[in-house]
Order: sequence, then C-alpha cells, then structure tokens
Amino acid sequence: MAITSSSLFPLLFFARLSGLVVALLVLFWALAFKSSFLLHSSQEDLIYAVLHPLLMVIGFILISGEAILVHRWLPGSKSFKKSVHLCLQGVALASGFFGIWTKFRGNDGIVANFYSLHSWMGLICVFLFGAQWLMGFLSFWHRGEARTVRLRVLPWHIFLGLYTYGLAVATAETGLLEKLTFLQTKRNVSTHSPESMVVNSLGVGLALLSGIVILAAVSPKHKTLQNKLMFSDAKCLSF
Amino acid sequence: MAITSSSLFPLLFFARLSGLVVALLVLFWALAFKSSFLLHSSQEDLIYAVLHPLLMVIGFILISGEAILVHRWLPGSKSFKKSVHLCLQGVALASGFFGIWTKFRGNDGIVANFYSLHSWMGLICVFLFGAQWLMGFLSFWHRGEARTVRLRVLPWHIFLGLYTYGLAVATAETGLLEKLTFLQTKRNVSTHSPESMVVNSLGVGLALLSGIVILAAVSPKHKTLQNKLMFSDAKCLSF
Repeated sequence: MAITSSSLFPLLFFARLSGLVVALLVLFWALAFKSSFLLHSSQEDLIYAVLHPLLMVIGFILISGEAILVHRWLPGSKSFKKSVHLCLQGVALASGFFGIWTKFRGNDGIVANFYSLHSWMGLICVFLFGAQWLMGFLSFWHRGEARTVRLRVLPWHIFLGLYTYGLAVATAETGLLEKLTFLQTKRNVSTHSPESMVVNSLGVGLALLSGIVILAAVSPKHKTLQNKLMFSDAKCLSF
Repeated sequence: MAITSSSLFPLLFFARLSGLVVALLVLFWALAFKSSFLLHSSQEDLIYAVLHPLLMVIGFILISGEAILVHRWLPGSKSFKKSVHLCLQGVALASGFFGIWTKFRGNDGIVANFYSLHSWMGLICVFLFGAQWLMGFLSFWHRGEARTVRLRVLPWHIFLGLYTYGLAVATAETGLLEKLTFLQTKRNVSTHSPESMVVNSLGVGLALLSGIVILAAVSPKHKTLQNKLMFSDAKCLSF
C-alpha cells in the first residue's frame, strides 16, 4: 500500500491519539458506570468482569497495535526492532490469555460462557495470535535458517498479523454490543444513556484506530519504493 | 502483500466457496427460524426485518467482495474491468442504502432505531462506501485528468475500499450479536439452540470470507512483481 506522503509522522501521531482516547474511554466505562460492572454477586466476580475489557482493549489490542508500529518508527538495528516487537506481542498475548481466563473464572450468567459469536471469534483470534507469535519466536531464534525461507514466510506473517489484529477489533465490537444489548434488555439501561454513548464512542474509536494502525503498517517508508510499487505493474493493486 | 504462489486460483475459489456458504447460512437463518423474524406485529414489519440481513449480507457484503475481486480475474481491458467494478459496487451501495432504509421503516422496538453501536458503524460504513463510489465514478468519467493524479488517488481508493469492506463485515458481526443477545435475553431463545449455532457459524463464515477476499485483493498477480516487492527494500513491510 503506497500512500502519497513519504512521512509516517501524522499517521503515527493519530494512531497514538486514537489509542489514548480508546484507553481513556474503556477505563472510564469500566470504572465509572454501575450498571455494566457493579451488579455482580461477589467482589471477585466484579474484578473479573472489569478486568476482561481492560485486558482485551488495553492489553491485547492497544499493545499489539503498538507492537505492529514498532517497525515503522523505532530506530536501531533490525534485530533490536524484532525483539521489541516480539516482547510487546508477548505482553499482548499474555493479556489476551488472561482476559479469556477471566471468563472461565467469572460467573455472571449469560455473558460468562463460551456459546456466543463474541466468544467464538475471541477464541479463534487468540489462537491465531498465539500461532503467529510462536512462528515469529521460532523464526527469531533460528538465525541459521535460509534467508529465502524467512522471506517467503514474512508476507504471510504480516498478512495474518494484520488480519488477526482486525479480527480482534471486530471481536471487541461484538463484545461491546453484547454487553450493551444485554444491559438494555435485561436491566433497562436507557439506549440513550451516557453509558451507551461511552460504549458506542469506544466502538467507533476502536474502528478508527484499527484503520490508522493498519494504514501505517502497510504504507512504505520511502518515496523511492512507493514509486517502484506504483509504476512497476499497472495490473497490480499497488500493494 | 506478496504471497508465495503466483496463481490466485485457490484464493478466488475459496472466496467464492465461503461466500456461497455465507449466502446459504443467511438465507437459512432468515427463512427457517421463527424466533428471529416471525414474531413481528405485522406482515410488513416481518418483510423489513427479513430484508435487512439479506440486503446487508448478500447485497452489500457479498456483491462488494465480488466487485473487489473483479480486478483479479476478469479478462478484458482495464476500462471494461473498471466499469464492471463500478456497476457491482453500485448494486452493493444500493443494497446498503435499501438495507438501512428497512430500519427506518421497520417498527420492531429496541433493534429498530439508530442508537446502537451496530447502527453507528453501519451509517459510517455506508457513508464511506458512498463517498468511495462517487470518487471512483468521477475518476472513471474524467479520462482527461492527469494520469499522475489518478495514480496518487488509487492507493487511497484501494485502502479505503478494503477498510470499508472490513468495517462492513465487523458491522455485520455486531448486528448478528445484537439480534442474538436480544433474542436470548428477551425471548429466552436457548444459547445452544440450532438458531444460535447458525448465526454464530454465519459470523465465523463472514470473518473467514473477509480475510480471503482482502488477501486475494492485495496479493500481486505476477511472480516478477512479487520478487520486486520482496527484495526491493528490506525495511519495508513488503506491501
């Protein structure tokens, strides 16, 4: 994907800005509204219920977005960038696992078990993410491996990584809607309440963030390459 | 995005196969299950309620996916491919508008109005899609325009198009979950009923379909170009 500007600064800036807004919205939602999280049977249930969105949005999605962007701005050697990418994705993966684990532990009725589309998507997503991380880890530690093999795997790693990231955002959107629809039908939370607006804004913020992160990830750093891509083959979609 | 095989045949085949499965699942859901659609106050309401998922999934998402793939397989001149792409996207856009219009007409309570994250995402999506189509249409009819200007716009058109397509799929996932959570909490539809399983499978099918369509869209046709992309600049993410 070739964009018209050779500088990635505006994209990186907006990725961080939307990430910050998303983090503040999810914190505000998790901590300020009684109807979503404070009607649980026990203190333990409450902690698991609050931890789930925080771990999934801040730990899994935001940190994994930052890990994707590492290759676009971090100075230093390729090996250094790869190890930072690997570490950050490791933190994201751990958050994802722990976030799903809260749902095994929690006991808040209909939203606790693994029957819904949200949970199916979430499990597929964390499985793909884990497989990706393992592949990346093995490739990182197998320096002796032929460079051509790694170059053949790289495009698949990038595509699957960005696809998994997009799937994680789509899964989060379904989670927000599941929670809100449940609250609105079961607990009579108003559809136009501040809580509903905060959750909707969080959903729109996540959608915007994912677009900016993926755009920053696929746009080339150098104008020369961009020109190569754009003029090398008119039949290709310039990616 | 460079993939290892120069042939797109398997990707196109699986895109159509998953598209067919998605179409059959949404038809089966809309026509076979009483709890989702048959508890409406009037015959008119029922028609609007059934039309919405059919128009959005088959009309908007599947046809727009097919329109994206036109550039990857259709023989003939570039101008011919562009006009087929424009026509198919026009049909998809009309389906999207009409699909949203059913929600203005329908009167089925909580899922009818424009307050939810699903509806916010849907409106953003159809707005972006409409803007994209208009840009494409204008660029198609302004042959005299400088080729360099069109080449500068093209990567944005491709990125925004694929982003909008991904957003449409994410929006559909939220719609499925909104409907199902509503049914499960309000009408006591079992969480492990065949209906829930069909809707979940539809959601997973849509997620898979979108991945295959986007992969087919961004992978280059020719091995020579792939090599250029992969070896031209090691710092770039090969897209």
